[in-house]
Amino acid sequence: MSAPRFGSLHDGPAPAAPGAETFTELLRAGGARVERIASRAVRDGDWYEQGWAEFVLLVAGAARLGFADGTEHPLAPGDWVHLPACCRHRVVWTDPAVEAIWLAVHLP
Amino acid sequence: MSAPRFGSLHDGPAPAAPGAETFTELLRAGGARVERIASRAVRDGDWYEQGWAEFVLLVAGAARLGFADGTEHPLAPGDWVHLPACCRHRVVWTDPAVEAIWLAVHLP
Repeated sequence: MSAPRFGSLHDGPAPAAPGAETFTELLRAGGARVERIASRAVRDGDWYEQGWAEFVLLVAGAARLGFADGTEHPLAPGDWVHLPACCRHRVVWTDPAVEAIWLAVHLP
Repeated sequence: MSAPRFGSLHDGPAPAAPGAETFTELLRAGGARVERIASRAVRDGDWYEQGWAEFVLLVAGAARLGFADGTEHPLAPGDWVHLPACCRHRVVWTDPAVEAIWLAVHLP
């Protein structure tokens, strides 16, 4: 039997400056990748557009995602988003009062 | 562009009775599967042993996982577990005072 591995999304590197994000890979298997993301006071973050689907869960904090058509979507803890491949998106805002913690699953 | 899809892990079917669990598939892509699990007052749940790796995050509640070697591991919200393929495990206990909400990622 392989041994299980444990951790907490509340532990991990903190973004150094307002607007910064840290990315920590937790697991990689079969072409999928699970990562922890911490964001600090993001304003109009970089656009992302990937060739694979992504599942994102906001674990702590508050955030707003923006999309290529100009729409925005607010997120509270427990809210998830399925971003299909080639769905252009960005973090428009995270609550400056609390670090935003995310779980991201990059699908094969 | 494919459209994003949104939801909350705090919404979904509630287990009907103490000891019960509900499983809701949120996403399936490239051999990976993301699901929401809600558990109510589990005591000595069924053993699982799968041919694939699984990543599990406790989102709400409190729980204890048990393993084939007799060890147990407590989980609080934000705690995650990487269960390698063929790692025999079960939910030993969930806090009866609050529904336990989990995110499970079954890896390809």
